Amino acid sequence: MTALAGVVGRPVRTDLPVRVGLDVGGTKIDAVAVDDDGLVLARTRLPSGFGADEVVANAASAVARVLGTPAPGSSPALVPRSVGVGIPGVVDPVTGRVSHAVNLGFADVAFADALSRLVGVPVAVENDVNAAALGTWHALGLRGSMAYLNLGTGLAAGIVVDGVLSRGSRGAVGEIGHVPVDPAGVLCTCGQRGCLETVASGTAAARLWPTDVPHPARALFTAADHGDPAAVAARTVLADGVAAAVRLLVLTVDVETIVVGGGLSALGEPLLEQVRASLGRAGHASPFVASLDLPSRVVLLPAGAPPVAAVGAAMAGAPVDPSVVAVG
Amino acid sequence: MTALAGVVGRPVRTDLPVRVGLDVGGTKIDAVAVDDDGLVLARTRLPSGFGADEVVANAASAVARVLGTPAPGSSPALVPRSVGVGIPGVVDPVTGRVSHAVNLGFADVAFADALSRLVGVPVAVENDVNAAALGTWHALGLRGSMAYLNLGTGLAAGIVVDGVLSRGSRGAVGEIGHVPVDPAGVLCTCGQRGCLETVASGTAAARLWPTDVPHPARALFTAADHGDPAAVAARTVLADGVAAAVRLLVLTVDVETIVVGGGLSALGEPLLEQVRASLGRAGHASPFVASLDLPSRVVLLPAGAPPVAAVGAAMAGAPVDPSVVAVG
Repeated sequence: MTALAGVVGRPVRTDLPVRVGLDVGGTKIDAVAVDDDGLVLARTRLPSGFGADEVVANAASAVARVLGTPAPGSSPALVPRSVGVGIPGVVDPVTGRVSHAVNLGFADVAFADALSRLVGVPVAVENDVNAAALGTWHALGLRGSMAYLNLGTGLAAGIVVDGVLSRGSRGAVGEIGHVPVDPAGVLCTCGQRGCLETVASGTAAARLWPTDVPHPARALFTAADHGDPAAVAARTVLADGVAAAVRLLVLTVDVETIVVGGGLSALGEPLLEQVRASLGRAGHASPFVASLDLPSRVVLLPAGAPPVAAVGAAMAGAPVDPSVVAVG
Repeated sequence: MTALAGVVGRPVRTDLPVRVGLDVGGTKIDAVAVDDDGLVLARTRLPSGFGADEVVANAASAVARVLGTPAPGSSPALVPRSVGVGIPGVVDPVTGRVSHAVNLGFADVAFADALSRLVGVPVAVENDVNAAALGTWHALGLRGSMAYLNLGTGLAAGIVVDGVLSRGSRGAVGEIGHVPVDPAGVLCTCGQRGCLETVASGTAAARLWPTDVPHPARALFTAADHGDPAAVAARTVLADGVAAAVRLLVLTVDVETIVVGGGLSALGEPLLEQVRASLGRAGHASPFVASLDLPSRVVLLPAGAPPVAAVGAAMAGAPVDPSVVAVG
């Protein structure tokens, strides 16, 4: 028996080996300890910091804190079964290297090795969207195949089939935000024109509805609800873009369920309604599209869901040799 | 030891259990007998016929003939290890039903059951493009992940990861021909506008280069080679369309290799050159696209390849209970 930091700060005790997962974001690290089914046993949050040394040190503190250990380097209260990290940027799950993590202030870091040295057990790193996909699959208790469609600053998807994350051959799996869908569209940051991301993302919402308020997409939906014709048109562009992403995922990998997550998903049911309406219009024009039954296959990540990227990181974590798992 | 119809008509003898695969096309049935590695041991071809009864009877004859048995119903020379059929239309591999096989003259047939009754062993059916994908993977001795991009009358892909065919959840996997890529494009037969199939298929070639000759795509490439500006422009549209399909497959499933097959692939190296040039242009505009290294990942199905749809059908065939496999 040993102490775990409780979900609401109270220490909890367990004698089960646990998996630790970290979601290292641009401003904060979400850390969880989960059981083998992905159920959250403990949870904590720390600032990410900036620069490789600071981010790695804070990640190590997050691991220690979620395991109920006062500080890294102090006697471990519990050896975790696995430690995994979801992180933005270009991630190589095999080497554990992370590059192009612009918001975290590092260009190319052997993140897994650096964190592993501080926490004393192997660490796996995973792209944050992939981690969120795996976490969503566990958190929602899904079966079969699923895509997690992340509508954040950009647009990307993670794909899980029968509980297994699709990793692809070179780290490009689910990068559907950079599939061009309109030769007359706006220029994308990637250099192509009319990418899906230019019509279905937080950045797209901000371009479609320029405003000084912190949440342009919410302002857009409010204006559309009040009947502003320009807002209605912009909302339709956004919904059609998300619908195009859903259709693309089904026509390529034919996942059973598409779960919409990321910042834009905070719009909630009104977003889902618009996307389903767009899919309905597409089905009205095309019996083939109608036969795909898309409106019923797209759902929202519930507002009260556990921190899915951290949970998925835990589930994708590097296994620790069971012979060293000494509890309490 | 028993007789198999030889590859070039000579009887061959084997005491290995064999897998039988049929590629049931609009005009002909290609049948093969292969070993457990997909190596073709025997091969034959029969007309498909028209209407469910005729097609099923001819398929049974093809099975018998490729096994060296004079006619269905005569004493079996060899019980095959498995029998599989690749067939166009909407195929349910679980129930064995085939529907919408317009060119074969049937709307909805329990094909697997009907053929199984005639040949006396279980039969599996598979979508023809999926079968070709699996056969290509075996025929080319590939490893890792692969998409087979079929440029036929329409456009579709089959996906194989580590030797396993991706089937998706409802039979829509690889139906990328109906992903819209241009809101201002031409109307597709599916009811949508600007589908990938409208710019990258045999039908697209015929529309882009209207002619009375039997092979519009070949006429188009010849005219472009002679410097006809309209032909050069049309060839670029076609090549850009195929390049878009390649990019889409990598940005969604991140397959390591894309093998281009189907009728248009008979254009050979000139087609591959144009597609690679288009991918090169896309990479020139976008460092992100350049990083995907697409030109080196796309290859042509070699002209001398075995009949891949039949080979794949054999490899995806329904296993026969080994206890009934009695050789010669």
